[in-house]
Amino acid sequence: MTNIAVLGYGTVGSGVVEVFFKHRDSLQKKAGQELDLKYILDVRDFPDSPYADRFTKNFEQIANDETVKVVAEVIGGLEPAFTFTKTCLENGKSVVTSNKELVAQKGAELLEIARKHHVNYLFEASVGGGIPIIRPLHMCLAANQIDEIAGILNGTTNFILTKMIRENMSFADALALAQKLGYAERNPAADVEGHDACRKICILASLSFGEHVYPKDVYTQGITDITLEDVAYAASCGYVIKLIGRAKRGADGGKISAMVTPAFIRHESQLGTVDDVFNGILVRGDATGDVVFYGKGAGKLPTASAVMGDIIECVKALDTSPSLRWNPSAGGNVAPREENVTAMYLRCRSDTVMLAQAAKKLFGEVQPLSREGQPADEYAFITPEKTEKELDAAIAKLAGMDVEILGKVRVLDY
Amino acid sequence: MTNIAVLGYGTVGSGVVEVFFKHRDSLQKKAGQELDLKYILDVRDFPDSPYADRFTKNFEQIANDETVKVVAEVIGGLEPAFTFTKTCLENGKSVVTSNKELVAQKGAELLEIARKHHVNYLFEASVGGGIPIIRPLHMCLAANQIDEIAGILNGTTNFILTKMIRENMSFADALALAQKLGYAERNPAADVEGHDACRKICILASLSFGEHVYPKDVYTQGITDITLEDVAYAASCGYVIKLIGRAKRGADGGKISAMVTPAFIRHESQLGTVDDVFNGILVRGDATGDVVFYGKGAGKLPTASAVMGDIIECVKALDTSPSLRWNPSAGGNVAPREENVTAMYLRCRSDTVMLAQAAKKLFGEVQPLSREGQPADEYAFITPEKTEKELDAAIAKLAGMDVEILGKVRVLDY
Repeated sequence: MTNIAVLGYGTVGSGVVEVFFKHRDSLQKKAGQELDLKYILDVRDFPDSPYADRFTKNFEQIANDETVKVVAEVIGGLEPAFTFTKTCLENGKSVVTSNKELVAQKGAELLEIARKHHVNYLFEASVGGGIPIIRPLHMCLAANQIDEIAGILNGTTNFILTKMIRENMSFADALALAQKLGYAERNPAADVEGHDACRKICILASLSFGEHVYPKDVYTQGITDITLEDVAYAASCGYVIKLIGRAKRGADGGKISAMVTPAFIRHESQLGTVDDVFNGILVRGDATGDVVFYGKGAGKLPTASAVMGDIIECVKALDTSPSLRWNPSAGGNVAPREENVTAMYLRCRSDTVMLAQAAKKLFGEVQPLSREGQPADEYAFITPEKTEKELDAAIAKLAGMDVEILGKVRVLDY
Repeated sequence: MTNIAVLGYGTVGSGVVEVFFKHRDSLQKKAGQELDLKYILDVRDFPDSPYADRFTKNFEQIANDETVKVVAEVIGGLEPAFTFTKTCLENGKSVVTSNKELVAQKGAELLEIARKHHVNYLFEASVGGGIPIIRPLHMCLAANQIDEIAGILNGTTNFILTKMIRENMSFADALALAQKLGYAERNPAADVEGHDACRKICILASLSFGEHVYPKDVYTQGITDITLEDVAYAASCGYVIKLIGRAKRGADGGKISAMVTPAFIRHESQLGTVDDVFNGILVRGDATGDVVFYGKGAGKLPTASAVMGDIIECVKALDTSPSLRWNPSAGGNVAPREENVTAMYLRCRSDTVMLAQAAKKLFGEVQPLSREGQPADEYAFITPEKTEKELDAAIAKLAGMDVEILGKVRVLDY
């Protein structure tokens, strides 16, 4: 008999409890032993819950109960999640989590504590909700060098962009709809400004490249500046705009290239067809080539199912040593944005004859775009690939020629 | 130190050897111990190979060497692969394989032998080449009921169909090109007639539904009858034609529904954008919703990397009991084709006014299609959903009205 505890009875936590009691038989079969969910930690009271007798407000009760072998931390945020996780690991309990913020900030440290105490720290649910990605990636790594990862990692922004692309809805209206449907928080900053996607790409990059990549080092730009005009220009040349988190291994041991930004990607690609609240993650390995994982990136049951998969994995691995880990790092291992090489879409307002000449002079052979209802003083184009430093300088020159820069989106090769 | 043996030095076997020596350090780190590849079994001589001293023609040498703990069977076919696998498992060695024919025919039996001898029988490489699918599916199953799986499971036929769709190439020309590029065998029957895809859907169905599904019970139709006219009609209504293997859990413990056939699927879907030699597999779980896995379904290095992942898994799990298994079955657990419910695309030749009336009378509200260059005596349409028994009867009546049935393809909801 192995006892489990759940820390936090929010959306994910209540889903974990629901999945546990619904699938208890099959879970026990998979785990090869009897399982009980002994404690649910929450500061609130749930007197009417069928599991009322399992609730506790006292974390120490769980931390000091030696029969509890696996703890699911689904509180979210840095504290008290970090302290609780650390204490559980030090007390010889495996911990599984959906807490991307904590893994992205403290992953290397917690994995090292887990290793020292011969327990597991697993976080399949922290990226891609119910999509299996962390474990397949970890297994892929055995016989592959992962060179690049790119993904649509945030369902809320993908829902908003899909509404803009398919229904010509403005950003503001699409955000309001996402909030109404419960896909977006009342304060949507973490989603629409890209921070959620940034945490996820940091976790994937850390695992793939073997050293901690911190969110603060990854240039992050959200989707708040994307307009329907930009969406129309993208469509005119077979692209869609998606919020892409990506990370590339540095050549010859150089710095990692990593970024979260909106981007033009080909509509008919595996990532280009990821719509609504779905996520898609592309992994480029030297032996496997491109592998893509697709599914619901959030939601109570998908995420709870991923947490539960990790719990079973921990139970089965109770007496084996964990192999999932990456090295700590002091940060600063990501190349500065200015060194990133990219093509850029630009939408400008001025005299278009002058603009066409200036664009060619400043950027080289650009690809002009057109859209229905294009005003006479609007000119949009895609530049050849250049470093962002070169692009910054050329765009600054353009802006100095009495040109208004109305839109600017990177163009990626996905 | 754990010793490994590789049975068969063909495309996959030589890839496994190559990946082992290329990634030996990282593999040992993942496995948590030293590894050696002690034997390579092949009937041929490889005197110039750098691994010449590891080759043997004597299987007994491997079977009786107690230091060999993990064996990769990459011979293919039923015999001697089955006897070798059985002997290794009975001698306490874990076996990993890419041999879909063997797993599809003998999976339940070999898994049971493995369980009895406390060793693993793993086959990640048997489906989807380098795409992680067996292990994620097995893990997903812990907290999900898998209700349906559908996939583009054969890269050769997908390459041929892609050439037909994108370049208007005939089936014969596309097949010849696939053979020239090494994607298709000189005898392409196993691919183009759907048998390879059938073995793979049987493995996925057996794992998902927990009982062995045999290839002989699964209605299987290849792509040899697909014409460019059918491709054009599909395109006219936003579809592409793909060879789809699918399996659905029976309602209320009823029979499984399973089939391999060409099908119209929506072009802008996750499976509809799987092109060229790539594979895509959709898994529908009650908690996760739809999850899709995409990547190269074949090839030396992708497949070898999947075999190697399983080897590491076996080494790590040497002292734990395996949980991957399904129940044996006597067969006959798949519903007959006639009970399958589907919409059908039909292309007919006769008087089109008569055809339109007859189609409506026989099938109900059909959706008429049109294409460029459509002859005056050709009429194509999509029927409403009906059982195949009903469709068979209606099509027979149509054929009895001096109508030539030129094309017939199922229309699926993917």
